[in-house]
Parts: sequence; C-alpha cells; structure tokens
Amino acid sequence: MDVVSLRRFFHQHAEVGFTEFLTTSKIIDVLRSLDYKVIYGKDIMEAEKRRGMPSEWQIEQAYCRAATADWIEPSVLEAMKGGYTGVVGILEGTCPGPIVAFRFDIDALPVKESEDPDHLPQTLGFRSVHEGNMHACGHDAHVAIGLSFAERMASRNFCGVLKLIFQPAEEGVRGAYPMVAKGILDDVDKLFCLHLGLGAPLGYVYGGSANWLNVTKYSAQYYGIAAHSGQSPELGRNSLLGAATSLLNIHAISRFGSSDTRINVGLMEGGTAANIVPSYAKMLLETRASSEEVNRELERRVRNILKHSADMHDLNCEIEIMGRAFSIQCDEELVRLVMETARDIAGVNYVHDFYQASAAEDACYMTEHVQKRGGQATYMIIGTDIAAAHHNERFDIDEAALPIAVDLLSQVAARTLTERC
Amino acid sequence: MDVVSLRRFFHQHAEVGFTEFLTTSKIIDVLRSLDYKVIYGKDIMEAEKRRGMPSEWQIEQAYCRAATADWIEPSVLEAMKGGYTGVVGILEGTCPGPIVAFRFDIDALPVKESEDPDHLPQTLGFRSVHEGNMHACGHDAHVAIGLSFAERMASRNFCGVLKLIFQPAEEGVRGAYPMVAKGILDDVDKLFCLHLGLGAPLGYVYGGSANWLNVTKYSAQYYGIAAHSGQSPELGRNSLLGAATSLLNIHAISRFGSSDTRINVGLMEGGTAANIVPSYAKMLLETRASSEEVNRELERRVRNILKHSADMHDLNCEIEIMGRAFSIQCDEELVRLVMETARDIAGVNYVHDFYQASAAEDACYMTEHVQKRGGQATYMIIGTDIAAAHHNERFDIDEAALPIAVDLLSQVAARTLTERC
Amino acid sequence: MDVVSLRRFFHQHAEVGFTEFLTTSKIIDVLRSLDYKVIYGKDIMEAEKRRGMPSEWQIEQAYCRAATADWIEPSVLEAMKGGYTGVVGILEGTCPGPIVAFRFDIDALPVKESEDPDHLPQTLGFRSVHEGNMHACGHDAHVAIGLSFAERMASRNFCGVLKLIFQPAEEGVRGAYPMVAKGILDDVDKLFCLHLGLGAPLGYVYGGSANWLNVTKYSAQYYGIAAHSGQSPELGRNSLLGAATSLLNIHAISRFGSSDTRINVGLMEGGTAANIVPSYAKMLLETRASSEEVNRELERRVRNILKHSADMHDLNCEIEIMGRAFSIQCDEELVRLVMETARDIAGVNYVHDFYQASAAEDACYMTEHVQKRGGQATYMIIGTDIAAAHHNERFDIDEAALPIAVDLLSQVAARTLTERC
Amino acid sequence: MDVVSLRRFFHQHAEVGFTEFLTTSKIIDVLRSLDYKVIYGKDIMEAEKRRGMPSEWQIEQAYCRAATADWIEPSVLEAMKGGYTGVVGILEGTCPGPIVAFRFDIDALPVKESEDPDHLPQTLGFRSVHEGNMHACGHDAHVAIGLSFAERMASRNFCGVLKLIFQPAEEGVRGAYPMVAKGILDDVDKLFCLHLGLGAPLGYVYGGSANWLNVTKYSAQYYGIAAHSGQSPELGRNSLLGAATSLLNIHAISRFGSSDTRINVGLMEGGTAANIVPSYAKMLLETRASSEEVNRELERRVRNILKHSADMHDLNCEIEIMGRAFSIQCDEELVRLVMETARDIAGVNYVHDFYQASAAEDACYMTEHVQKRGGQATYMIIGTDIAAAHHNERFDIDEAALPIAVDLLSQVAARTLTERC
Repeated sequence: MDVVSLRRFFHQHAEVGFTEFLTTSKIIDVLRSLDYKVIYGKDIMEAEKRRGMPSEWQIEQAYCRAATADWIEPSVLEAMKGGYTGVVGILEGTCPGPIVAFRFDIDALPVKESEDPDHLPQTLGFRSVHEGNMHACGHDAHVAIGLSFAERMASRNFCGVLKLIFQPAEEGVRGAYPMVAKGILDDVDKLFCLHLGLGAPLGYVYGGSANWLNVTKYSAQYYGIAAHSGQSPELGRNSLLGAATSLLNIHAISRFGSSDTRINVGLMEGGTAANIVPSYAKMLLETRASSEEVNRELERRVRNILKHSADMHDLNCEIEIMGRAFSIQCDEELVRLVMETARDIAGVNYVHDFYQASAAEDACYMTEHVQKRGGQATYMIIGTDIAAAHHNERFDIDEAALPIAVDLLSQVAARTLTERC
Repeated sequence: MDVVSLRRFFHQHAEVGFTEFLTTSKIIDVLRSLDYKVIYGKDIMEAEKRRGMPSEWQIEQAYCRAATADWIEPSVLEAMKGGYTGVVGILEGTCPGPIVAFRFDIDALPVKESEDPDHLPQTLGFRSVHEGNMHACGHDAHVAIGLSFAERMASRNFCGVLKLIFQPAEEGVRGAYPMVAKGILDDVDKLFCLHLGLGAPLGYVYGGSANWLNVTKYSAQYYGIAAHSGQSPELGRNSLLGAATSLLNIHAISRFGSSDTRINVGLMEGGTAANIVPSYAKMLLETRASSEEVNRELERRVRNILKHSADMHDLNCEIEIMGRAFSIQCDEELVRLVMETARDIAGVNYVHDFYQASAAEDACYMTEHVQKRGGQATYMIIGTDIAAAHHNERFDIDEAALPIAVDLLSQVAARTLTERC
Repeated sequence: MDVVSLRRFFHQHAEVGFTEFLTTSKIIDVLRSLDYKVIYGKDIMEAEKRRGMPSEWQIEQAYCRAATADWIEPSVLEAMKGGYTGVVGILEGTCPGPIVAFRFDIDALPVKESEDPDHLPQTLGFRSVHEGNMHACGHDAHVAIGLSFAERMASRNFCGVLKLIFQPAEEGVRGAYPMVAKGILDDVDKLFCLHLGLGAPLGYVYGGSANWLNVTKYSAQYYGIAAHSGQSPELGRNSLLGAATSLLNIHAISRFGSSDTRINVGLMEGGTAANIVPSYAKMLLETRASSEEVNRELERRVRNILKHSADMHDLNCEIEIMGRAFSIQCDEELVRLVMETARDIAGVNYVHDFYQASAAEDACYMTEHVQKRGGQATYMIIGTDIAAAHHNERFDIDEAALPIAVDLLSQVAARTLTERC
Repeated sequence: MDVVSLRRFFHQHAEVGFTEFLTTSKIIDVLRSLDYKVIYGKDIMEAEKRRGMPSEWQIEQAYCRAATADWIEPSVLEAMKGGYTGVVGILEGTCPGPIVAFRFDIDALPVKESEDPDHLPQTLGFRSVHEGNMHACGHDAHVAIGLSFAERMASRNFCGVLKLIFQPAEEGVRGAYPMVAKGILDDVDKLFCLHLGLGAPLGYVYGGSANWLNVTKYSAQYYGIAAHSGQSPELGRNSLLGAATSLLNIHAISRFGSSDTRINVGLMEGGTAANIVPSYAKMLLETRASSEEVNRELERRVRNILKHSADMHDLNCEIEIMGRAFSIQCDEELVRLVMETARDIAGVNYVHDFYQASAAEDACYMTEHVQKRGGQATYMIIGTDIAAAHHNERFDIDEAALPIAVDLLSQVAARTLTERC
C-alpha cells in the first residue's frame, strides 16, 4: 500500500492508547513482509510501569473487536492481550555502524469523528469505524510514514542498525516510559522523533523543537452520599457540587508571570438520575508549564482545590497521578543534520531550527534516556495544513505532507547510517 | 411464593424504568397462575406518550439479559420489545359491582447496591444481580404486596371487577401518563395507590396524603468545540465550564417564602480526555415546588441559567422537558375508608389521615383522570422502618410491613367490592 | 403631631441600628411632653451584650449628624454617645395593677431610598434625608404608632404600669438582647409586640404569630496577599476568588425536606484596584430555619464552606457570629384577647389567630424572658397594603393602617390595665 | 532635600491617581526654587480625555486634606481643583538644541501600608499618613529621582531644552493620554521613561524594554432588586450571585497558546446588610495580553461573561472601559545610548538591552506620539532590590538605587543635550 492508503487505513481503524490491537497487527504484517525483525507484546513493555490504563472492560472490548478481523494472526493478538500494544521493527545493515532509531506514536483519541460533509474522511469514506475513537492528532499519518519509510529502507544498503519504534498510548503521556523501562532504548545511538502539523504549514520543516511544557495528568474521584432529592435532599452529600466547584476554581488558578501555563479539566462525570442526589463524580485533568518548578506549584494548587472542594461538601476525595512528562532537549548536531537534509527535499520551502512547542510529549522519556547514555536525540516538526485544531472532531491533514516526510526520514537515515561501508 | 420471597426475587432482579422485562414476565406468570386476565405490551401503553426513554441500547441490553432466563415465555418478552413493560391484571367478581383498581409501581433506580456486610440483601444473598440497578425506593415490595394481594383475592367471592395495575417507570414520572392515554383508567370507579416508608415507621398507616410537590424533569445538552489543551486551548469552547457554572447557579436559585421548593442536578457528564478541551456535556435535573405557579417560575429560572451559562462560554444549548407531575388530591371518603379498615389490621398501631408528602409521584395522572370522570382516588402510606434514606445505596425495608400491607389491601378491597352480592 | 406626621418625620430621618440618635431624641421629647418617665442610654443597655455594632466611625458620623439638629438636648445626645440608642417610657396608673409592656422597634435599613416619582415619600417630600438609610421595613410606622398610643394613654385612668419599649437595632437581631440583659423586662407581666404588613393586607389583624424562623448572622473575613496583576499575579493570594466561591456554594446548600430554610449573603466587598490581586474580602450573611436543629446544621455547613473556600485559595479566614434569634411562642390567652379586641375596631375586616411568620425577630429574647418568669407575651400582626416587598427601596405602607393600630393598642391596653380601680 | 529625604517625603504623603495635590504642590515648589518654568492644572491636561476618574467625593476629600497643609500656595491648589494634578517643568539651555523630555509618574495605589515592624517605612517613620494610600510601586522614588535630577541639571550648561514631565494617574493607565491630547509631547525630540525594580536587582540597568502587554481596564455594575431575605427572597434579584459567577468565570477564561495573557478582578463590592437580598454590585477588572488581537478577544469574552452572568440572574448590567494601553516600542539608538552611559555609572554592575516587561504602562501614549512625529523614545529599567512584590502592602525599595538613577539620568541628559554649544 502507498503511504496515503496506509494513512487512511489507520485513520479508519482508530484505536485509543493501549487498545491499538488492529493497528499493531497491521504494522507487524507490513514489517514482516519487508523482512524486519519484529518484537512486541510483553517483550517491549514493562508491565508494572504502565500508567493510566483504560478499564479492563475497555481493553477487552477493543480486543474482541480486533478478534473479528479475519486477517489478524491469532498468536499476535494473543501476545497483546491485556493491552500490550505497540511493536519494534529492526533491520540490520550490511556492515557495522550506529544504532539509529525512529519513533512513531500510533494511538488515537477518544473523539467522535465529524460526519460533516466538508470533513474529507467522511466524504472519501475513511471516517473512523470505531465510533468514539478518532485520529484527531495525526498519529495515523505518523504510522503510515513509518511504514513507507520502512519499505524504502528495506531495499537499501546501509551500515549499522535501523530501529523503528511504534509506540502506543502517547496521548496521556503513558506509553513511552514502560518501553524505556524494558530497555528498548538502551542501545540507541541516535533517536529521531517527529510530529506533523502543530501549526507548521505544508512545506515547513523544523530540525528540532524547544519550549516543551512539563505536564501532569490527574484523575480525581469524589465520594458522597445518595439521597432522595424530593424527600430529604439534606441527607445527601452532593458529589457534583464539589466537582463543579473544583472545576471552576482549577480553571481560575492564576496565570504565572514567570512561566507559560495550561490547565484543563477534560472529563467530568457523576450522578445517575435526576431524582437522586449524586454520590459519585470523576474528573480527568492536566496541568502544564514551561517551568518544572511552576508545574509542581500547579500540582500543589490543583490538589489543594480538589481536596477543599470535597471537604466543603463533606465528600471524600481520591487523587491519582496518571502520568507526567517533562521537557525535551534536542541535540544541536541532529537539528543541524535534519535542517541540511530538509533543504534538498522536494516540497520543502522553509527550514528552521527550533519549533516552539508549547505542548507536552512523552517522547521525553526516550530522548532523556538516550542522551543520558551518551546518545543524541531530536524531535522534528514536519509541516502540514490542517482543517481544524488538533484534537478537534474535524481535524484533518494535507496528505501532501506524507511523501515529503518519507523522503526526509529516508535521507536523514541515509546520512546517519552511512550507505557505503 | 410468599410475600417475602417475592419481594426478594424482585429485589434481586432490579430493572430501571421501561426495562422491567424480567419483572413484568414474573408478574404475568403469577397472575396467569391465579387465573387473572392479563393485558400488556402495546395494549396498555400509548407509544408516543412515553417520555424520558432510556437509550435504545440500554433497552436492548436489558432485553437480552431477560432473554437468557429460561423460564420466560418468548411471546411475552417479544410483546414488550422496545420498552413496553408493565402489565394489568383483571379479575371479574361473581356479580355486578364497581370497578376498583390498585396501582403498584415496579421499577428500580440506577443505583449501585451496597456490598456492605451490614446491608441485609447482601448478607442474605438477594442483592441485585443487575449491577447498577437497585430497588432503593421499595417498589420491589410494592410488586410483592400486589401479587400476594392478588392471590388472596383470587380465592374470594366479590362483586364488581378488581383491576391490578403494575406500572413501569414511576421514577422520573414517566410511566403513568402513557397508560392513562391508552385508556387503562377510563372505567375505574375507585383507585387506590400506595407507598411504603417515606419516613412513616412500622405500624403506621395514613389513609391518604397531601402536599405532593409539583415536579419538572429536564435534560440539558451543551455543545462546544474541542481543541488541544496544550497547543491552543483558546480555540476550544469549553462545555464543562458552562455546565459547572449552570450546576452551581441552579442549586443557588433562591428559596421561596411562598412555597416549599427542591432543586437537583442529578447527573452531569462531559468531555473525553485530559488533553482535549471538552466539547460536549449533558445534565439531568429536576425542580419541585408545592405551588404549581412556583414550579413554573423555577422552570423559567432554570432555563434562563442553562441558556446564559451556555452563551457565556459560546456554547450551544438544548433543553428538553423529560417529564412533569403535579399534586395529588385524595378523596376524603376513601381516606376515611382506609383509616377505618386499618384500625382492625394486626400490626397497625397508629392510623392517620393525611401524610405530608413533600415528594412527587406520577400516580397524579391516574388519580386526576379517575376523579375527572367522577371516580374517587387516594394515595395511602404504609409504614416501615428503613435502613437508609430512600434512593440511597443502603436502603432497605423492614419486611414485617409486607403482610400488614397485604392484609390492609385485602380488607379495603373486601369493603369496596361487596362480598355478598 | 398626629400619627401620620410622626411616621413621616421618622421616615425622613431614617437611622440604622445603634445610630438612632435623632429618632431616640424625638421619642424622648414626645414622651417627656406627655409626662412619661424616660430611661435611656446605658441605663437600658448592657454594653457588653451588644453585638454586630457598626464601626466606630459610622456611629460617630451619625452622632455628628444628629448634633447639628438644634432641637436636640445635648445631655440626651451625650448619654447615647457610642451607640446607646433606644428609650423606655413608663407611665404609672392611678392604682396598683399589672405591668404591661408594648415593644416598638425603631431602626432603619442600609437601603438607598427610591427617587422614583411613583414612590410616595419622594413625591410628598418625606424621602429619607439620610442618604443610604431607609425605613424599608415599616419601623417608622411602629414608632409613630407607639407615640400616638402613648398620647392616648396619657389622658386615661388605669391601674398598673404601662411600659413602652422603643428598641434599637432590631434588624440583624441585635438590640433586644442587651435590653433584656439590663433587666428592662424583669418586671413585665404581659408583653405585646407588633409588626405592620408582612403580607397581611389592610384591615387584617392576627392576634399572634407562629412559625418564626431561627436565624444566625455571620461576618466572614478573608485575608490573602496582594500582588501586581500583570507582573507576577502568581505571588498573590486572591481573596475574591475565595469569597466568590463561598458565596455561590453557600447559596447552593441543599434545601431541607425537614424544615423551611433561608440563606443570604447580603454583603460582599474586597480588593482595591483593577491592577492589584485582591488581598482582603468581607461578607455579611445569615441562615434561617424553622427548626433550631436545622439552623445549627446550616451553621455547620456555612462554616465548612467558608473555611474550605479560604483554604482552597491559601487564604486565612475569620468567622464571627454577629447575632442569633430563635422562635417566638405566643400565649394563647393574649392571642385571644387581641382577637376579641380587634373585632370591635373600625377598619378591621378580618381577625385571625396565628400569622405564619417565616421570618425572624429579636423580640424572641423579650418574649422568652417574660414567659420564663411567669408572664405572657404575644406578637401580633396588623395588616397594611405595601407598595413593594419589605427591604426593597420602594417599600411603602398604606397609612390608613396607622389609626387602626393606635385604636387596637389602646383597647388592648384598656382591657389589660383595668381602667376602673 | 537629598534624594532619599525626598523619596521618603513622597512616600509618606502617598496620593492615588488624580488626587496628587500635595505631591504636585511639592514638586512645583522644588522646581520653582530651581528656576524651572512650571506648567500645571488645565494647561497640561485635556479635561474630556481623562478616564477612570475617582468619585467627586474622593477628589474633594484629598483636596481638603491638602488644603490643611500650611506650606501649600492656595493658587496652585486652586488650579488643580477637580483632579488636574501633575506638572511639567521646563529648563531652557544656553544655546539652541533638541527638546529632550524625561517622564516620571507620581501616583500611589489604594493599598493599606503594612504596619509590620519589619517594614522599613514603618520602623523609620515615613509610612504613609494617608491611610489606604501607599506608594507600593515605587513612584515615590521616581519623583525623588526626577527632582534630584532637576537640581543637578539646574547648575549645568547645556544646549536645547530639558522638559520634565511629572505625570499623574499612571496606575490604571489613565493620566498619560490627556497630557498627550493637550500637546505636551508635541515638540519633544527624545523621550526617556523609566521604572525602578520590576524584578531587576540593584546594579542592573536595561537600556530599553520589550514585550509590554496590551491592557484594558473595565468597570462593571450590576443592578438587581432588593428583598427581605427571610420573608420573600424570591422577590429579589441577587446582584452578588451574578457578580460572583462572573468573577469565577472571568478568571477561568482559557489560557492562550498564541499569547501571554493576564486577567484580574481587582475589586468587587455589593449589598448592604445580611438580611437584604443584594441589589447592587460593582467590579473593577482588567485584561492583558502580549498580542493586541488577543486582548481584543479577551475583551469580547469578558463582556460576554459579564452580560450573561447578569442575564442569568435577571440583572441589568453596565460595562464601561476605564482605560486602555498598548505595547511600547523602544528606539534602538536610545537603548544603546543608555547602555553606553550606564556602563560608566558607579554602582551599575550589569547592563542589558531589552527588559522583558510582561506588564503594561500608559507611557505608551507618550512614546507612540513622539515616535509618530519623528522623535525617539525608550523606556529604561533601573534595578533595585525589593522587599515584597510590586503592589504588595510590604513593598519597599533599596534606596541605594536612587543616586545611581540620578547619575544615570544626568549623564544621559548630558550626552543628549550637548553641553558645549
């Protein structure tokens, strides 16, 4: 399949973090057909290091959904049971050389994709068939680029080892850490990560990125007492009053003069029926800051608000950290390498050094690990025009960015894994 | 089965409004074994008059759950498909006489039943097997009383017609109106409704009730725009900020000097993930007031708050009325009849006239209909000690109230349907 | 002066609680001209028992304002310095008999009176000259009635002692208790209190009243840290965020099925300028409930919300109880006496026993004290049509109620203080 | 007086914007004693261009306070009546040359100064004698520097014209615009503005500044209906519920990925007494953003929230823009001039080009005006250690910065107004 067809296939079969069963199976199929060595399941994931897992039931549902696809090999699916998704593909060169890794994130978001006739995936028939799951951040394209790049490299001579890391559960900054913990990055000399879009238009390439935000993800649960809302509401302890109060006050936390910050309560649910005082509520939220110290202060304030909003309404409160990520530092040498390479790629009009990210990525665990062991890493941005903001139900990329990205990665790999040995 | 066993059976198989498939099937089985004529399915429900239906998927799930029970007759289940639950049992006397109806509500609540070892249904093994559905208001006991009473009457001679109405979906005041619309109450001369507990202790009987609250049930939905919470939160339109603001302000609506009032936002849910600005939110809520005029004013204020909380955050808002109920007026003659009868029942210690309800009931549609056509109606309260407030997850009744209730109904029926003809 | 002129005089010189310098001086003038013995200043007030005092500056300002009136005797004013307002007038009968007291409250409210041309006091020129102080509850009429009644009694023969208590600071339930503490009520055999209006139309008289609410008055202060809102808002601790959160949540406290309740945050102020993170905020609030136990529970919840709203934003919080009042129990014998008397008064059309108050009054301290010592008390309601709700800036009474009230009190006194001795 | 004594004098006599009567009088005295020509009153202020004026009563009070000082010349005070504060001092050189202006802001803040023994102005006895007014931003030092600098220049020979602009009401960005409108800046060739502190420590000098925030100042008023909180709260329209809702939601406005932003509701007040449903509320607030477009979007959102918070509670709402300021662009040539000069000043350790301001200043009106007419301008920062954040009640500067500033300005003037002509 060409890179566009691949992208549409993955778009159509969007799966959220730790449920990428179909996605992983497809990647394995393609890599095997190209004679890559593949590692997957518990061999690439430290089980106890996984955080922010979906419920067992959600994992099971996605698993069963995949099990109905006749092209999937049962043994592969079996190895991923319980949410051990993702895969690492390895291609040995014909002579000794460095170990160079490229990382692609593969998960979708819990977004119901638009059915608007203006939304291309709808019109062209590759809207997500998994209702409520959508590739609204472009990871479908990342996977497609990774596989087309894999194909290109399969027919080349090079020295060293090419390692393609298809990582699950990037959203929520959850999947990278257990892969690092399992040792997947231990032998990597150079690591290239990438993202499409993020405001960079088609034809732009940034060799690296900076100003990544530190992020913390939280889950909070409130426990009250149910009561008959007509007879004796005063006997209840209203979980939603506590939750709504904390939601407003968390968003009202002061801006910081000393750091860029972000706050979002992304999910809130509680109660069961109009005539019962609600006794339970749940929230998923996050804070971000360019300064790690400020993010710790945001964490303190969020916890304080969550706790006292609960106490105020005589509720019990449980707060859990679901994930954390920190800033990525790109190595100047790799940034320069990508920039120089990009200037020669057809379709690239502008080449810059550092993209100002103002976002968070769990690739930070990988880049830090490689750098600590003496390796180098960069996180490049490849431009594409987008139809709506990232994470919106009408998000879509300009597929013209796909061949540009494949060309760029191939040339970067060519320069790094010296072809003549 | 005796009345206690029946009550425990229904408690164990709790089903929420319009999904009472198992419950209705069991009632039909018992009534048929007693030679009652039974009417059910679309013959007792005006389809278009049903409001506040669960989602099709919820109805389907409960249907399939019931379908796995081997004792259920498929034709009965088939007739209820789509949520046409409930049943009317009719027993003709041996001589002409009045048509006397008794009404029993049969639905459970969306409450997860307690697993506390102090909770008797847990200890004695009849905790709800339908996780998330619980008889936390005593309707299980109402059904059991109705069936034991049916059995008692089956062996008696009387004049006139006995009509037993097993009504679905009382919670949310939804099930009575479509039965009235279908004409089930058209020929009724006297109507007796009842409730256990509500603060009345074991041994108490109230012949009637007063001060029923008017109630309105609402569903509200907020539509915003999703966005990446780190990259560009400003592009989002945050549905949960709007919903939390309306929740707080709706609860903060002024008390009224001129009327008792109640307000409850019983359910709120919105958003999908911590890193997406939430674009959707839903609320279920209700208002109650002793004065109908005040309840209309509450309705105006609730709509105003819902609308402007949405506008404030650039959201679209849809508000739907899910149900309404008004006050019940009991006929003094029937109240007196119940009181006189009650004084002779073993186990009854105190007999009163009017219970001050401060609650709402959709029996109002039935009582009003009967009274408008020249008949009489009352809503009696039969005391029972309770383990926790109505609608709480640890709610439980004292089963000693069950035989008292069966005796009382039998004697009331005996006095109304003159035995010697 | 006739009763209407008197009422307009007091209306025009409205003074809030503990600053009724002009008002008290005028009352003393009239009573002295009628040969009543007058007691005032610290002789009728236990200094340390006064609560909820205005600031020293507010008292001083009102004092100076009064000092400019040339008709006021300096020694009288001097005796009231520091907020010792109010006066007791005593008239001894010509023969021994019971001590019968009538109580009139004399304070105004901190309301800016309407300048609307439809507002009669504006049109007729007796709008309050004390900007921001207004008789919006009818106490101006109470004083006028008390003085006209005093005049009527001055020319009569009777047995026993007539005691007229002109009490300051009824609003906020502050003035009665220090008078009781001083012993003013110690010798009273029968106590009559009254209020105009409260929803009772012209021509109505209620001999007594019931369902008085328990009330608690609170003052809360929040202390944060000021900061430059542009440079470094994160260094601030925002007192207004805490105050606004507590205000919303206090109003959102659950209604009670078991008791009528009221909640009001009547004043909130904080901060100094748009570019400073506010470091201070103050609130005045109250709770009311028909059940004393429920009012205590409201008190617990209000304190809980105040405290945790402060903690949530790293603020310090001080809470002070400014006043409390409880229910008034009227003696049936006096209620009957007033009813029988009222039936003979010209202009009275309807006579009832117990008015359902749903309000609070600090006369409770006086009635309880008298009853505890073996005396009797009642709190009667005299109807008048009103132009707007009590405490509204356009509140006004129908002055036709004034002579009715004077007649009624005179006849009640005549029956109680037996004229022939 | 030396610069330290001057600073302490002004600190002790802090006056907020448009009430700087004492302050201006003192400046005029000093300038006159140095033979400067002084212009003041309506000659330097376009009356109708003044915005965000204090109430007439506040201006009057401050005026009377100044009138009691015996050293003030009545004619000077008279010229400032109504809030025409500020003064321009002009010194002509001995030969032709450029017109060079220095601008000093002179107003204090509505902050109650700390009485803490650790607070130096308290210990040393120059705490503000104007309770509730405090120099918590360092403008007292600006004035002192300006006058010492004026003295230094008075004894020098130079070419051109020196213009010293002592501007009132910088806080709230109100005073600069009416001076510009009056033409005070029309003939200026070079304009130097300055600020002490802002995070820059003692010994630092920044020749210019950048990243000034755009700012908008708002006043909002809510009008509801008062009612008796016990009798009939439902007749009220609660202004504080609306105000508290808008306060929380305004603070909860989304952060922007595309711009630095700030939001502050700095003052809120409403209601009168605990037993009256509050019918009035007022707020002072501001928004800031590095992007002008984003500040306009903040303005739209703030207005939207204010309006719908009012509508939600059936209130009327009035919103007024009190002031606006935009970014300052410093001319590179002047920035370099200051930097070069600073390097030679004793006590200066570090010299930088552009300070990142993240604040707002109404000097923007002056700099823009000068630049539009072909002149040049810069806004320099002179470091000083501070005891607490700007605008905090314990703010204080290190006075060692004062002579450094005077030296710097004198040398800058010397270089600009060429001494040898």
